[in-house]
Amino acid sequence: MAVLKAPLHRWSAVQLASALDRRELSAATLAAALIERTVGLDPSLHAWVDFDPAGARRRARDVDRAAARGPMHGLPIGVKDIIDTAGIATAYGSPIYADHVPACDAACVALARAAGAWVLGKTVSTEFANMTPASTRNPHGLAHTPGGSSSGSAAAVAAGLVPLALGTQTAGSLIRPAAFCGIVAYKPSPRRIARAGVKANADSLDEVGVLARSVEDVALFARVLCGDVAINPPNPQAMVPRIGVTLTSQYAALSSDMIEMVGASTKRLAAAGARVVDAVWPRSFEALFEAQRTVQLFETVRALAPEHRYRREGLSPALIDFLDEGSRVSPATFAAAMATARTAIVALDTLFADCDVLITPAAPGAAPATLATTGDPTFNRPWQLLGCPSIALPGGVDGAGLPLGLQIVGRPQDDDRTFAAAAWIEHALQARSISMGRCLS
Amino acid sequence: MAVLKAPLHRWSAVQLASALDRRELSAATLAAALIERTVGLDPSLHAWVDFDPAGARRRARDVDRAAARGPMHGLPIGVKDIIDTAGIATAYGSPIYADHVPACDAACVALARAAGAWVLGKTVSTEFANMTPASTRNPHGLAHTPGGSSSGSAAAVAAGLVPLALGTQTAGSLIRPAAFCGIVAYKPSPRRIARAGVKANADSLDEVGVLARSVEDVALFARVLCGDVAINPPNPQAMVPRIGVTLTSQYAALSSDMIEMVGASTKRLAAAGARVVDAVWPRSFEALFEAQRTVQLFETVRALAPEHRYRREGLSPALIDFLDEGSRVSPATFAAAMATARTAIVALDTLFADCDVLITPAAPGAAPATLATTGDPTFNRPWQLLGCPSIALPGGVDGAGLPLGLQIVGRPQDDDRTFAAAAWIEHALQARSISMGRCLS
Repeated sequence: MAVLKAPLHRWSAVQLASALDRRELSAATLAAALIERTVGLDPSLHAWVDFDPAGARRRARDVDRAAARGPMHGLPIGVKDIIDTAGIATAYGSPIYADHVPACDAACVALARAAGAWVLGKTVSTEFANMTPASTRNPHGLAHTPGGSSSGSAAAVAAGLVPLALGTQTAGSLIRPAAFCGIVAYKPSPRRIARAGVKANADSLDEVGVLARSVEDVALFARVLCGDVAINPPNPQAMVPRIGVTLTSQYAALSSDMIEMVGASTKRLAAAGARVVDAVWPRSFEALFEAQRTVQLFETVRALAPEHRYRREGLSPALIDFLDEGSRVSPATFAAAMATARTAIVALDTLFADCDVLITPAAPGAAPATLATTGDPTFNRPWQLLGCPSIALPGGVDGAGLPLGLQIVGRPQDDDRTFAAAAWIEHALQARSISMGRCLS
Repeated sequence: MAVLKAPLHRWSAVQLASALDRRELSAATLAAALIERTVGLDPSLHAWVDFDPAGARRRARDVDRAAARGPMHGLPIGVKDIIDTAGIATAYGSPIYADHVPACDAACVALARAAGAWVLGKTVSTEFANMTPASTRNPHGLAHTPGGSSSGSAAAVAAGLVPLALGTQTAGSLIRPAAFCGIVAYKPSPRRIARAGVKANADSLDEVGVLARSVEDVALFARVLCGDVAINPPNPQAMVPRIGVTLTSQYAALSSDMIEMVGASTKRLAAAGARVVDAVWPRSFEALFEAQRTVQLFETVRALAPEHRYRREGLSPALIDFLDEGSRVSPATFAAAMATARTAIVALDTLFADCDVLITPAAPGAAPATLATTGDPTFNRPWQLLGCPSIALPGGVDGAGLPLGLQIVGRPQDDDRTFAAAAWIEHALQARSISMGRCLS
């Protein structure tokens, strides 16, 4: 394989796993290569929180010495700082938790470690996985946001600092940064990946997910985390998907580059043999954008009650504004938003009657040229509230060469089919090469 | 009021709140009285984890000095040890977390403190809120289990060590100990009380709830925790409830005392003016008992993955057995159990067509005469899986004088009506006097 002559930071997780399994590569060697990459790039990228090379080397050596060899043996992972890691500082993106060292791993970290993975480092999260930007930059353009809230995980994976990372999503915090950074992300159906040990944000909405540079790599990690609930190794030959395309009712917010990319991708998929139809945006979905935001506001102000009530001095003004707004959402408004979701979910039967998955923009366009915002999760909100699994795929680049992302959306609990369709689409679009081609070399 | 001549440990939370509000009572005075009660009784009861009188006094004094006066100003609470408390050790009922001192409160604790409450102490939880008994005893008979997993909260409230306590329920961990100890408990509709900062057990099932000695006291606390979602101060005059009665399909497991108590209570409620009908147990509910257990097994082994995977030496043999059993539940079996719940929930429309609430046994009978088990949650499982709010009410005593509990069950999200009906039923049965009459004096 030609790629095996490439530097280790460009290998896929599947390739690394294979070499590690055959003992042609040690975790320690891999750690050295990735630490070198981090030392070179992270001073400008800020993907890691307090990167600790000695700790990373020690964890890699421990795995090399371990007798048990699981499906992720020797693979390094980045862990979003909103997720607990035993003995490794976990600050939830907030100065309030600057000194917090969890006693135990979150469930997702424990499952990864039990499968043989090791923690290379903690990746930057926005403050409590909300909208206040952190210091991370986009590897495709350092003046651009990497998206959020899984900012560090997306930037680190895109820049080749680590092949796999954990993130979380409450509105669009996995799909949007993956799209902005030109990589793949998986947001599972509700509760498919255990959330224990993850700092809560909005309890009805929060999900743990995975970021990597290919569907195959994401699936390798997701299988371990889901306990094989539904995700087979995706096989592009296994199905030719029926695909519904929608720009949603919010198409006016899309960049012309994004609209062109979705159109061009759709044509290529049809040419490759997929049955592509225009999906009719259900009228009952119109209220979902606002309803998701209402649920998030109402639940976040409750989940962050301790910090909002008496650690206020440690919060950013933007988060205080958001929480204050949440305090003003009435229980009746919250109940109405939940009822909106229950009503709309019925329309999924019609929407998916003739298709396996939907294709829809992952974000309004490419990453904005600013570090003052993490971008707009509008195009992720409906699927999050409905509990649809979604996978971000690189779809192309805009005029400035910045990544544009597609969002592959499945029916709730239909994660297996969603993965299979995403693998087929990735193959048909050669999406993988788009994501790696633009990274810092 | 005659009760105000009673010692402070016998006052209701509402009475205490009124005296505190009028500044006729200080939190420090109340702390002194309750500490004295604890010093006398807890050596035999074991309701508290490492009770710290100095810390309790300090927290009470801080509240006395505070400028803000919320709806719970000056009220002491017990907090189940599965719930994080800032600066107060929180061991989750496990030696693994013996040294764990959270950096921040759980959301429910923060909301209580923001309303003026203060933490008197941490109450004993079974190991990770599962089924392995802890050391707590039943105040109505020290050789009997207090029930679990909210063992310490139920025992402390029943014995007058504290007027209000927080607990959690995944199967029957609020309703069963409340019934065994002769007190009132509220298990809300799903996610109505924020779960942030509570050690996860089974993510689809876990709820935070409240224990106290009357519906009125429970409602006072619940209003603060729910953010006034639905719970008005219950008024027995406001409604005459239509009540459905069911012993469920598992009636063969009920003690004759329990069957008699339910029958006698039903007659008294009808005599007091309620419309009482026999509810027909839906055929689709038959599978709920096992389905709830399946969901719990599948999700608990994932939530406790860190402890199960590499802190095994710190787990009890019984919990290891439970987690090992959970490891063998296949994703397909889990999915089928979730589907069972979705199918059964439709039958709630029929079940509640002619009634506001159901009355059903809170447990098979009185507290078993053993400390080797926390009793059987069979009669709580269906409602937990369906997301029905439930309130435990003292219903009477068995031949040995031990409490027998009723369970008032409402439709999902119908917590307001459930509270109102429970208040009416409590009044009609004079249930409050039953609970207090049997406690350690």
